[in-house]
Amino acid sequence: MDRPALQSAFHQAADAAGAAIRPYFRSRFSTGDKGSDGVFDPVTEADRAAEEAIRAVIREKCPEDGIVGEEFPPHQGTNSRVWVIDPIDGTRSFLCGVPLFGTIIGLLDKGRPVAGLFDQPFTGERFFGDAGGSWFLRGDEHSRLGTRSTRTLADALMMTTSPHLFSAEERPCYSALEASVRLARYGADGYAYALLAAGQIDLVVEAGLQPYDIVGLIPVIEGAGGIVTAWDGSSAAQGGRVLAAANPAIHAAAMERLRV
Amino acid sequence: MDRPALQSAFHQAADAAGAAIRPYFRSRFSTGDKGSDGVFDPVTEADRAAEEAIRAVIREKCPEDGIVGEEFPPHQGTNSRVWVIDPIDGTRSFLCGVPLFGTIIGLLDKGRPVAGLFDQPFTGERFFGDAGGSWFLRGDEHSRLGTRSTRTLADALMMTTSPHLFSAEERPCYSALEASVRLARYGADGYAYALLAAGQIDLVVEAGLQPYDIVGLIPVIEGAGGIVTAWDGSSAAQGGRVLAAANPAIHAAAMERLRV
Repeated sequence: MDRPALQSAFHQAADAAGAAIRPYFRSRFSTGDKGSDGVFDPVTEADRAAEEAIRAVIREKCPEDGIVGEEFPPHQGTNSRVWVIDPIDGTRSFLCGVPLFGTIIGLLDKGRPVAGLFDQPFTGERFFGDAGGSWFLRGDEHSRLGTRSTRTLADALMMTTSPHLFSAEERPCYSALEASVRLARYGADGYAYALLAAGQIDLVVEAGLQPYDIVGLIPVIEGAGGIVTAWDGSSAAQGGRVLAAANPAIHAAAMERLRV
Repeated sequence: MDRPALQSAFHQAADAAGAAIRPYFRSRFSTGDKGSDGVFDPVTEADRAAEEAIRAVIREKCPEDGIVGEEFPPHQGTNSRVWVIDPIDGTRSFLCGVPLFGTIIGLLDKGRPVAGLFDQPFTGERFFGDAGGSWFLRGDEHSRLGTRSTRTLADALMMTTSPHLFSAEERPCYSALEASVRLARYGADGYAYALLAAGQIDLVVEAGLQPYDIVGLIPVIEGAGGIVTAWDGSSAAQGGRVLAAANPAIHAAAMERLRV
């Protein structure tokens, strides 16, 4: 499969997901709890509708590829490629009517993230990355993404979803980093990584991620010149504790603090 | 001045502010520190340009009215009306490229908020309220705002800007409330009150507000059926500690917790 055909599959899948999600956003049908154990874990009809829409595009365009998604059982493919899908990243944002949720679609080849996308269907923003670089698309706008050149933590803008994300073991590491940066802002989920790729912020730090939360974002960040790893420096593709940075210098400075 | 003329002044002022802000959003010219005392307090050229644009509309349309804004000295009017302006509420969001900042414009008559507006110039959303009710406007969409009927904290969705907003004295009150709700989300500034008016969330709780942070939002919330007061039950129009709620029942339940 050549690059244009692959990109086309990505964009068609994201278009289908957006069309499935939009009718549910800010509607009265958008709430629902996953499971029955009393723990709040919102999932929506939109979540399932979007994943089904994405899977239908992939099955049609790339029938030999595997698929792993948040909402349905994995589909075993017959080649080295696996699509990794989070139909609605940021379900809390979605539930509250905040347009920072998004659809994340990633493609692994032999376990390595090779292309990915973040789509926000209310604002109409799309962030796509592959070996050819990363791009921002919105309406007629189509511009190359590039990260910031910030070198020191004292100048750095940082985002994370919530300080409650971190375990008792992780909290002191996060707090040491937060105390070192110019500004820390909460509440953006996957949208924060897209803003990092777009040169708006310097650092994103999170913990407890699933692979589908991050796989599709790695090519967007790397294609824009950024770097994303686990807190121990290994691949971020397994999820868990993740640090994304605008460039290697600010990544190294942040890693130093997380080792506290 | 009749209601249509007043509404027209509001919308023209918000249009002018949006036009002034948009070129700066996500541009490399958008950062700057206010003052020189080392405390981070971002202000942007956009902030000043937007307030100047709003003031120009008010001076032309309502020359006898007073004006109080975040960025420039107050203008003394010759009647009982005072406009209260926050050209960019949520400067941290603005700096990070997050489209949850907004322009807040309020109108006091004899010290009482009688009309107000929240405008998000990137998403194109506008929330307006006066004695005739509250409305959502976006492109061709023009729909009436109405708050939720949630009755218990266990079912309530809550937002606040950041847990760091609260002083040592306020923190236990906030934490008691946060522990009682179904979901608490951070990071939305004035946008959160607009979502409450839109029936998306049930509670917004903040502290340390300036009058210009809240005056323009009070008519939007009240016109949608919501209620907004200080934590002690007095008027929220002075800023400080503010609690907004979708209805009197959930307001009373939240007030109970804040008294801890």
